Amino acid sequence: MASDYKVVGKSLPRFDAMGKVTGRAIYGTDFALPGMLHGKLCRSTVPHARIRALRLDKARQMPGVRAIVTAADVPCARYGSFIKDMEVFALDTVRHVGQPIAGVVARSAAEAEAAAAAIEIEYETLPAVFDVEVALQANAPLVHPDLLGYQAMPTVLRQGNVSNQSLLSVGDIEAGFAASDHIFTNRFTTNMVHPGYTEPRAAVAQWDRDGRFTVWSNTQLPFEAQSTLAEILKVPAAQVRVICTVIGGGFGGKLRLGVEHYVAVMAKACGRPVKMVTTTEEEMATAYSRQPVVIELKTGVSRDGRILAKQGRIIVDTGATSGSGVGVGSSSALILAGPYRIPNISIEGLAVYTNKAPTGSFRAPSGPQANFAVESQMDIIAAGIGLDPLEFRLRNILRDGDTAPNGQVVAKVSLEECLRKAADAIGWSQRRDGNGRGKGLACGWWTTTSGSSGVYVKINPEGKVVMNTGCAEIGTGALTGAAQVLAEALGVKLDDIDIVSADSTATPFDHGAQGSRTAFAVGNACINAVEKLRQQIFQAAAPKLGVPAEGLSLVDGVVSGGDKSITLAEIAKALQLSGGGLIAHGTFIAPPTPYDPKRGRNLVITTLNSPSFHAHAVDVSVDQETGEIQINDYVVAQDVGFAINPLYIEGQIEGGVMQGIGQALSEEIVYRDGHVANANLTDYKMPTAMDAPRVRSILVECPSEVGPFGAKGVGEPPVIEPPAALANAVAAAACRVSDLPITAEKVVRHMAMAS
Amino acid sequence: MASDYKVVGKSLPRFDAMGKVTGRAIYGTDFALPGMLHGKLCRSTVPHARIRALRLDKARQMPGVRAIVTAADVPCARYGSFIKDMEVFALDTVRHVGQPIAGVVARSAAEAEAAAAAIEIEYETLPAVFDVEVALQANAPLVHPDLLGYQAMPTVLRQGNVSNQSLLSVGDIEAGFAASDHIFTNRFTTNMVHPGYTEPRAAVAQWDRDGRFTVWSNTQLPFEAQSTLAEILKVPAAQVRVICTVIGGGFGGKLRLGVEHYVAVMAKACGRPVKMVTTTEEEMATAYSRQPVVIELKTGVSRDGRILAKQGRIIVDTGATSGSGVGVGSSSALILAGPYRIPNISIEGLAVYTNKAPTGSFRAPSGPQANFAVESQMDIIAAGIGLDPLEFRLRNILRDGDTAPNGQVVAKVSLEECLRKAADAIGWSQRRDGNGRGKGLACGWWTTTSGSSGVYVKINPEGKVVMNTGCAEIGTGALTGAAQVLAEALGVKLDDIDIVSADSTATPFDHGAQGSRTAFAVGNACINAVEKLRQQIFQAAAPKLGVPAEGLSLVDGVVSGGDKSITLAEIAKALQLSGGGLIAHGTFIAPPTPYDPKRGRNLVITTLNSPSFHAHAVDVSVDQETGEIQINDYVVAQDVGFAINPLYIEGQIEGGVMQGIGQALSEEIVYRDGHVANANLTDYKMPTAMDAPRVRSILVECPSEVGPFGAKGVGEPPVIEPPAALANAVAAAACRVSDLPITAEKVVRHMAMAS
Repeated sequence: MASDYKVVGKSLPRFDAMGKVTGRAIYGTDFALPGMLHGKLCRSTVPHARIRALRLDKARQMPGVRAIVTAADVPCARYGSFIKDMEVFALDTVRHVGQPIAGVVARSAAEAEAAAAAIEIEYETLPAVFDVEVALQANAPLVHPDLLGYQAMPTVLRQGNVSNQSLLSVGDIEAGFAASDHIFTNRFTTNMVHPGYTEPRAAVAQWDRDGRFTVWSNTQLPFEAQSTLAEILKVPAAQVRVICTVIGGGFGGKLRLGVEHYVAVMAKACGRPVKMVTTTEEEMATAYSRQPVVIELKTGVSRDGRILAKQGRIIVDTGATSGSGVGVGSSSALILAGPYRIPNISIEGLAVYTNKAPTGSFRAPSGPQANFAVESQMDIIAAGIGLDPLEFRLRNILRDGDTAPNGQVVAKVSLEECLRKAADAIGWSQRRDGNGRGKGLACGWWTTTSGSSGVYVKINPEGKVVMNTGCAEIGTGALTGAAQVLAEALGVKLDDIDIVSADSTATPFDHGAQGSRTAFAVGNACINAVEKLRQQIFQAAAPKLGVPAEGLSLVDGVVSGGDKSITLAEIAKALQLSGGGLIAHGTFIAPPTPYDPKRGRNLVITTLNSPSFHAHAVDVSVDQETGEIQINDYVVAQDVGFAINPLYIEGQIEGGVMQGIGQALSEEIVYRDGHVANANLTDYKMPTAMDAPRVRSILVECPSEVGPFGAKGVGEPPVIEPPAALANAVAAAACRVSDLPITAEKVVRHMAMAS
Repeated sequence: MASDYKVVGKSLPRFDAMGKVTGRAIYGTDFALPGMLHGKLCRSTVPHARIRALRLDKARQMPGVRAIVTAADVPCARYGSFIKDMEVFALDTVRHVGQPIAGVVARSAAEAEAAAAAIEIEYETLPAVFDVEVALQANAPLVHPDLLGYQAMPTVLRQGNVSNQSLLSVGDIEAGFAASDHIFTNRFTTNMVHPGYTEPRAAVAQWDRDGRFTVWSNTQLPFEAQSTLAEILKVPAAQVRVICTVIGGGFGGKLRLGVEHYVAVMAKACGRPVKMVTTTEEEMATAYSRQPVVIELKTGVSRDGRILAKQGRIIVDTGATSGSGVGVGSSSALILAGPYRIPNISIEGLAVYTNKAPTGSFRAPSGPQANFAVESQMDIIAAGIGLDPLEFRLRNILRDGDTAPNGQVVAKVSLEECLRKAADAIGWSQRRDGNGRGKGLACGWWTTTSGSSGVYVKINPEGKVVMNTGCAEIGTGALTGAAQVLAEALGVKLDDIDIVSADSTATPFDHGAQGSRTAFAVGNACINAVEKLRQQIFQAAAPKLGVPAEGLSLVDGVVSGGDKSITLAEIAKALQLSGGGLIAHGTFIAPPTPYDPKRGRNLVITTLNSPSFHAHAVDVSVDQETGEIQINDYVVAQDVGFAINPLYIEGQIEGGVMQGIGQALSEEIVYRDGHVANANLTDYKMPTAMDAPRVRSILVECPSEVGPFGAKGVGEPPVIEPPAALANAVAAAACRVSDLPITAEKVVRHMAMAS
């Protein structure tokens, strides 16, 4: 069937490629307005303190300074997604090093920075907490003593330093353990890692008319930025316009406001456009990194390798604000249960405050952390009961028609296919583990995030088509994918599609470039618009061709019926001259995935929609003296539903695996006494091109019933399994390491302990 | 009925008012991009010559110069609307003083201007022609010797210096004269006048990606600019994006390319954004002024004052390019025939080249010129046969069901009402003409220009609505009118409407802000979109309220049924969360107005759609010594169909009357030997606020069957009748002047001749 397609299923170049490779693309960091001033932040230098005095006089006298803003300039006290615990500028207490206290606007960024450094702050130090397990103790310092007084979503359960406590509960956990032949209890910890987008956060704000302003930024979510800015500045959302620039990577790190609110407040204060760009140091020390977690898992299995009970607890270190940590604590439960048949489950998720920087929704939030624990333990159990890890998984995985841990029924489960294909490709059956070489497997499942998409589509008189979407292209290629869906559905070439995107006023609402949903949801909205366009086109063509509308087809931009034909361009031109133009709107929202609400408590993420399944397999060598890990081969078998554009999906897989390898082996934001000790790209060890192994992608196509042409979300999954797959391979080669990252130093230490 | 409306029919403030009065609006002249360079043109200093040599070396060495462009940088040789007789830069011959020969890009406008002046040009002078009647002579110098070789629309009839010769022909003209009791033959001439917009032409171009570029400009027609730029640069239209800035007036003078093509060519040449703004001198000497005309009219009437035959000829001086002159020659026929019952008509229109600057489609193109002749002659005839001018008109005007000269049948003709109301208001029946005081009347009809309009409409979750239209707001208030139509149709407040407009890529096609069509056509497209939105809204509300969709109403942003209600904001929010968003598209094109093609030859304007009727009445005093004319009172009775926003319509009427007074009494671009002698606002005498009389507007509402809520086009008509009305009043007070403008000097001369 796929071979009949002309545009989808093809590795066509991205619409944004030319601008990016030629340097002509205008990124957020490039964007400038005439008469623009520059902003910098004055940030806390202590992890927890009351602000006794804030003296701005000296800073105000510094050269080039135009305005200084503080909490007094911000109408809204606190904002936030699940719990309103974020402050634009510290109100009276700082809760982490790097927390913004004031902002300076000056002629140049250097002048603003110098003035920000001249702001004098008198602190009254408060006891701080940096460890989530300490934070859970009864007498721990409280990061937010007034937490219960903050506004929050009704489902969150707050107490002490806990911003939410969720529970996934299935069957009878005690009975499950009682029936088990073997019980395994393990503890895993993961690292804080940065999304590592190439382009830092950047935004320019300008107040246009009385009470209206525009922000140009590299945000992933212009509509969320719009509504949050409206909340912060206490203006109706319609008075805020957010327009996305070209975006140099997001990975979830640009979902929430970064600098947009600062430039908005600054531009209002000085009456001029203001720009802000974060530095690498600010990024590494204060941006939305992936939450480090502590996971304890207790799993009971039968003698023949069936999982009978799984009890777990994940403690998510959200830093000083809860952010998406509430959701991560909740969705972790679905990942910790895993894509397995388990009759008895009890998994608790805790999101916990510490006096560290706010964390965020890094690509597949909760995925790599939880999967590292589950899939490491699967190998530990397999070894413990003497089963091949692949075989052990195959005995327990979800299959067609099974009920998943949350009560959703899964169909068309491709997990066995993914596992077998990855295992075959890595040479699983011929492997010789141990003595410095080993192979590891890990598998998982993930969601295609739901949410509204609307599009406007117009066909110009020369037959070119404009897709107008509220979704941003964040560098994944997914809007090219949506355009391919549009082109295929309409019967035109991809080159015929032009894209207007991500402007909160000019484009229709879109839930945005997040959660692997862009090509899926925007593509489906396009299909809806095409239904309307085809009607108009055929109705206009029918009298011209003397063929009834039902007898017409549209292929390659040509409407044909019988032996007669007319180009789409001619129809579009005729309709512009005689019919008001050829335009349509389309909308889409995925139907809700049924689940069993009785199985959860305070879960804010409850289902995995159009779930994808995937398996990673890796072959490593471990230097027995230095502990250095070399990746010999890496295979990903991922169920993409339908590969709209194999090339960009492979790009997503290769990039995701590299990010996963970074988290697995080298990256870590290191805190010492509340300060980031390695806030630069020399000491924070992101893998470079030299560290990149060959990654082989196997695209499994088990169609979604909802996605366009059967496609599923593909962007997040590749980052999920690398830590577990690598941990399992390293365990096979040398030793088990259960705290990320698996550095050479740790490997040496563990090998020494084991020998 | 009108009193039931909540938004239309009200004098609500314009959406663009705040930005304009606070100075925050970004006009074309304000628009700037970082790294922008500036362009200036080197223009011909002679009216007709071959270019023997063009030496750029000295100019290239001038400080700050970055690029110099000439015809060699322009892919397309010639372009144009009816006839492709326009050259971006002179190819080898210059045909008027001020014709662009080369463009200079430099760091500053001053440097560019200095370098442009340093370009050395060697001319071989050719004989020139500046008078249309001379241009028609057999041995006249030819402005375009290769005219027949140019591409042109098939309907134009070219020969010598004539770019089109059209004929409106009804009945038997000779028989009509034979049956007449009196025959009047008169000659009228009109002046070349400038649209006089406050903001000069301004544009910035930037080449974005390979082969794609964007132009920000104050053009009235972004889509026409897009297609013309594509033609000139020989790229597909989809590679050209034109975005309108705020526009400081247009009046038709910004319909055609002004500086957009120059900045596009310059920006391509230098690889940087380039801006150009015209100077007052360039505007007055080279921009699209109203065509001066020579009109001869021969009219036969019966003893009892019925017009039996009208023969006429209008010679339109188009300057060196035909531009819209072809259309003016043609539409003049409909205006020269007038809104009268005439059984025998023969009116010839000639568009003629001269070696003067290109002319253009100034507000109601052909209207003031032709109306001046018709309505002056109506008074001359009335005096000749001893009838009251009002009575003479009433005996001849079109009435309901009449067939107009072009064969279109007119319904709901409000002309008698307009004439009587204007006459009553000016005190016609009690007038005492002569001895330095007199009253004059003039009436006419005009079209509501047709053409496509498409809109996208979205309703945000806070209930605010965005209207996305390809039409620009050029300062008339008409987009506010369209927004009022949208608000009324949808059942929300005008404040709830936000407007995105005039971007050739991001907004749907619109025929544009021209021909009094904006509120009419965009408003109707909005009504079409609202039909779709209301369906969606009621379908979503029905289950929530437990009331069937048919039983629901939407008023003031609240959906009600029975005693239950829900806000539009709630519905929009619910649909965004659960239904893909609340968006729709709407299109409109006016149904064609039937006419009789046998009555015309080479007519390119054939009908007056949703015609408006109007009468102006004025009371003047003429100083018997100095000839100075003082306007004591001015009344306009205009059939607007339905007054969507009385305030902005009155603004249109007052502004139009002022422009008409300028043409009638003082304005004239004076040519001496092919050079404009008064290319500045000191010597070109535009009326100032001190010259403005009180203008009283009487809005007659005789609904159009097509327009939104019955509205008709209102923007152009007010400029049509002032010259004739004033000429008739001055004739009643002192003397008849048949060549515009009616300056004090001419009045004194005519009074002397008459005495």
